[in-house]
Amino acid sequence: MKAVILVGPMVDEYEVIVPYSLFKAHDFEVDIASFEKEPVVGKRGVKLELVPNKKFSELSSDDYDAVIIAGGYAPDKVRRDPNVKRFVKEMVEKGKLVLSICHGGWVLISAGVAKGRRITGSQGIWDDLRNAGAEVVDEPVVIDGNVVSVKTWREFPDLIKRMPEILKIAKG
Amino acid sequence: MKAVILVGPMVDEYEVIVPYSLFKAHDFEVDIASFEKEPVVGKRGVKLELVPNKKFSELSSDDYDAVIIAGGYAPDKVRRDPNVKRFVKEMVEKGKLVLSICHGGWVLISAGVAKGRRITGSQGIWDDLRNAGAEVVDEPVVIDGNVVSVKTWREFPDLIKRMPEILKIAKG
Repeated sequence: MKAVILVGPMVDEYEVIVPYSLFKAHDFEVDIASFEKEPVVGKRGVKLELVPNKKFSELSSDDYDAVIIAGGYAPDKVRRDPNVKRFVKEMVEKGKLVLSICHGGWVLISAGVAKGRRITGSQGIWDDLRNAGAEVVDEPVVIDGNVVSVKTWREFPDLIKRMPEILKIAKG
Repeated sequence: MKAVILVGPMVDEYEVIVPYSLFKAHDFEVDIASFEKEPVVGKRGVKLELVPNKKFSELSSDDYDAVIIAGGYAPDKVRRDPNVKRFVKEMVEKGKLVLSICHGGWVLISAGVAKGRRITGSQGIWDDLRNAGAEVVDEPVVIDGNVVSVKTWREFPDLIKRMPEILKIAKG
C-alpha cells in the first residue's frame, strides 16, 4: 500500500508527522510531495525533517492508494497547482482514500470534489466549503465515501480511533 | 486510565503531540507536566499549544497509570528535578507504564532505574546509559518489563505498531 502527503510552505507540522507515522505504522510506503523536492518550512517555523521526495508534477493516481492533504496555510498555495487538482480529483473518482486535514478542504474545493459532500475542517474554511456546495459537519472526523476529513490536529485522537475504518477505504 | 507527559524547555515537539494523540485515542486522560504551568518552547522553536496543567511538584504515582518522558533536550533540565526523580522511580517500582522517548533515557538514569535494564534512545545518550549500567539496544522500541523506550520520533511508526502490547502494561 502506498500513500502520499501533500505539503507546502506554512504546512501544519503536526499534520505531516502524525499521518506519516500512522500510515507507516500500518505498513504503507509514504511519499511526501510538494512543488519541489526541497525541505518545507511549516507554519510554526519548523523546517520539516520529512523532505519531499516527489514533485506534484510527478504524481499519478495509479501509483497511490491514499492521499493525505495536510493543513495549516499550505493548502492556500497547494490548491493552485493544476497537477494537484488533477491528482486529487482522480483519487476521489477512482475511489481511493482522500484524507483532508484542517485547511486541506481548500484543496478539495479547488479540485472540484467538495460539492454535495459531508466535510469537516478548520472553522476558517466552513464558509468556503458551504459556498462550494459542501455540507459542513462540525465533528472531529467525517467519512463520506472515500473522502475523509479531520477538523484539526487537535482531533487526531479521533482520527487514530477511526483508523481501522479509514484503512478499509484505502484497501478498497 | 490516566497518563502524564513530562515536558520542559527544548522538548522535542513531535514527542509531545504524538504520544498525546495516541494515549487520548486509547481513552486515557492525559496531563502535561512541567516545572510550571506555563507554555513550553520546544527545540524547534515551537511554543507548544499543549500547555502544562500540572507542576512536577504536584505529581503523585498514585494518580497515574503511565508516564511518558518526552525527549529533545528537555530531559537535561527535567532530570534535575527531585520531584521527577521520585515520581519516575515510584512509577517504575509500582509496575506502571514508563515510556521514555529519545533523550528521555537521561531521566531514567537520574531516577536510578536504568541499571540492569534493556533500553534504547538517541545515540547521543548511549554512553550515558551504559555508564549507568543499562544494556543499550539499537532497536526502534525496547520493552523491558514496564519500562518501554523508543529510539527517536522517527521510530514512532514502530511505537504505534506496538501500542497494543504497551497498553497492556499500562492496564496492569
